[in-house]
Amino acid sequence: MSKRFSLGLFENAQANDSGTATWRHPDNRRSEFDSLDYWRANAKLAEEAGFDFMFLADAWGWADVNGERPEVCTVEGLDLPRLDPAIVIAALIGETERLGLVVTGSTLLEPPYSFARRMATLDILSGGRIGWNVVTTGTADTAVQAFGVDMVAHDERYVMADEFMDVVYQLWEGAWDEGALERDKDGRFADPAKVHRIAHEGKYFRSHGFGNTARSPQGTPVLFQAGASPAGRAFGGKHGEAIFVGSGSVEQLREHSAAIREQAAANGRDPRSVKIMSAFAAVVGATEEEAQAKYASVADAQTPDVTVASYAWFTGLDLSEYPHDTPMTDLSTELSQTQVARFAGKTVGDVLRDWHAHGVGARPVVGTPEQIADTMCALAEGADLDGFLFAPVIPPASTEDFVEHVMPLLRERGVIASPSQEVTTLRERLTGASSPALPKSHPGATYRNS
Amino acid sequence: MSKRFSLGLFENAQANDSGTATWRHPDNRRSEFDSLDYWRANAKLAEEAGFDFMFLADAWGWADVNGERPEVCTVEGLDLPRLDPAIVIAALIGETERLGLVVTGSTLLEPPYSFARRMATLDILSGGRIGWNVVTTGTADTAVQAFGVDMVAHDERYVMADEFMDVVYQLWEGAWDEGALERDKDGRFADPAKVHRIAHEGKYFRSHGFGNTARSPQGTPVLFQAGASPAGRAFGGKHGEAIFVGSGSVEQLREHSAAIREQAAANGRDPRSVKIMSAFAAVVGATEEEAQAKYASVADAQTPDVTVASYAWFTGLDLSEYPHDTPMTDLSTELSQTQVARFAGKTVGDVLRDWHAHGVGARPVVGTPEQIADTMCALAEGADLDGFLFAPVIPPASTEDFVEHVMPLLRERGVIASPSQEVTTLRERLTGASSPALPKSHPGATYRNS
Repeated sequence: MSKRFSLGLFENAQANDSGTATWRHPDNRRSEFDSLDYWRANAKLAEEAGFDFMFLADAWGWADVNGERPEVCTVEGLDLPRLDPAIVIAALIGETERLGLVVTGSTLLEPPYSFARRMATLDILSGGRIGWNVVTTGTADTAVQAFGVDMVAHDERYVMADEFMDVVYQLWEGAWDEGALERDKDGRFADPAKVHRIAHEGKYFRSHGFGNTARSPQGTPVLFQAGASPAGRAFGGKHGEAIFVGSGSVEQLREHSAAIREQAAANGRDPRSVKIMSAFAAVVGATEEEAQAKYASVADAQTPDVTVASYAWFTGLDLSEYPHDTPMTDLSTELSQTQVARFAGKTVGDVLRDWHAHGVGARPVVGTPEQIADTMCALAEGADLDGFLFAPVIPPASTEDFVEHVMPLLRERGVIASPSQEVTTLRERLTGASSPALPKSHPGATYRNS
Repeated sequence: MSKRFSLGLFENAQANDSGTATWRHPDNRRSEFDSLDYWRANAKLAEEAGFDFMFLADAWGWADVNGERPEVCTVEGLDLPRLDPAIVIAALIGETERLGLVVTGSTLLEPPYSFARRMATLDILSGGRIGWNVVTTGTADTAVQAFGVDMVAHDERYVMADEFMDVVYQLWEGAWDEGALERDKDGRFADPAKVHRIAHEGKYFRSHGFGNTARSPQGTPVLFQAGASPAGRAFGGKHGEAIFVGSGSVEQLREHSAAIREQAAANGRDPRSVKIMSAFAAVVGATEEEAQAKYASVADAQTPDVTVASYAWFTGLDLSEYPHDTPMTDLSTELSQTQVARFAGKTVGDVLRDWHAHGVGARPVVGTPEQIADTMCALAEGADLDGFLFAPVIPPASTEDFVEHVMPLLRERGVIASPSQEVTTLRERLTGASSPALPKSHPGATYRNS
């Protein structure tokens, strides 16, 4: 039997995923991203199929090419409009019972004090099913204009994020001890000995006083992280519990996962406690030919203009200005370095082709259910992965295909769990731990008073 | 037939309402404020009974008496813990179909750019059922410590709030025109001519660029406002659509409502378009004696310590330091002036007694269903009120009493509408207008491009 793995469903509260625009495809229903019905159906599909969680990405800002937002962005619904993922996730709490719900939140743009309350409220109302995808906002140039705050350079954003964690750990782990709420009508509502003042005076943040929420089921929500730059990996190795890596070959992913586990160990953490999840996309057909034809219909659904605009949004770089044979190493950016560095050794022309095919998302595996299941098992085993974040190329049709045709095979092979009626926290579900709290070796756990 | 009126249900996502602590009362179930089941049951009760909306209050900070949070605050669950009301409201969208949902949000502490996205997301997912209770955070002294921002004095907070409105009106009314989303797979996702760049460069806020959400059903959520200071009333007269006034006699409330309508007219608005809603609490008994006995059980449920601590939270004033005969006009504060000014002519002792009985909430009307219905009709008619914000003294038991015993009488008298299955926006429901948008005479409407 191959290595067992977790499954998350990657979604976006906007018409398209970042980097591609497949909304025109006839089977794409994500253009109804602003309807609760779309999300309700999708969450129920994921829960009933046995996905471990639904993950909602987020971004701030918009595609900016030389100071202008290209008209194609509006015409294609590329970057905007989008909804607040925390509100979408909150609306799904009552619609689901077991599904983990992961919200993206920015350490550049959120005030940590109110962000801590918002996330804790989600964790409390959901019974501990919440994850936080920690981002530093790669698309910072337009985001800071919108928020009216100063630009923070790429690597410094991770220094800031590290300080942000210091504040929210104090609020989630240190401010209210477990068991503080007694609710004893003949005694106390809460125990004063279990409520603590926090004090943070840093370079980026100040926060003094009391936390708003009593300890939530998980305390700190499960921390997801994805940055692939050296600064991003260092941050992930310290704080991340589920590290989301891009798609790639077994060799590439094995290198990534080994590096991440090493970084975790260097931070005094159990390297196995870090769950490494790869982006995964699939186009499923009854035969290879059918799958390839389906995939061709996806590429046809978008224009080259989309590619240039969306790449510019992430990197500030207008690739249409460079000859196709320009080496990518000639370009540099203060925005998302991940989206430049991953093309080292490639040319501008290569990148335009690659980005057109799948943007920042995974390069889809195209084939029969067996081929897709084989690829997943080989990746999990060969690259030491703990899970996959399945991104539907055509939402929700690709998810429906995957649920119907691939998941039964994975279950037969014993690599994914059977859909369980058991209700548990997301941390217990993902890590198999018997406690919903951060493990002792995690730096956030040191903020606990007991 | 008396004047018809609207009904809102006042709730708080914490164990107690600000200013009182009735959680020990045996019928009080708000101590389960952190359970989705509590909110689900409460929202369904309100919707089915025909309430027009549920209103969630909020506060930041905690009770601070001379730099310390008194232990009684924890023991009684007075100020903390509390949840994020926007998340609680979001979780109720799918649980309700027609109920309006009003969220409190602070112009002192929210970044307007992300706040606009959050509120618009709520309005979009709920089909236009959202209201925003605009607050400047009366409990600013501890709140600014927690957020690590500078203190802003009372009247200046309204100047800041006015600028905040300028930013969010641009985002809600000006950034995306009605009908911008076409979702035509053979045409455009959105029309570029209907998407506009915003530019705000002010004293408190800067925001440049594009809005995140397309126009929500109501554009601007229905604007609730409650400030009773001169600065608060001026702000409410300009922006407020539903002005929430405290409880009082017919004469007091008539004076308030006349002053508010005058202020609206001075701002070029239709004075009848401003809906004036009074705080209302009731203790219902089959007989007057039964009602009085019930009321006595409420007062018995809390200690004088709660009163001192909670008054200090709102005002920074420790009344236990002053002789009981001190005139209130001797005291001043940079926190909530409303909570000092309303006691002009009273002594410290008067205030301690009054606050113990009902905190910042309404003084309950205690009596039989007929007496309570009579009082409401007399107030609505005599003080020219458009509605009541019903605050349960013992949540949810007081609401259940009111629904069961008083609302049928109000319906018989034709002063409240029959529960309708009609789904409409909150603005249409409250104002009877035939459009979900801000009326033309409202200052926010001038931000629309068409």
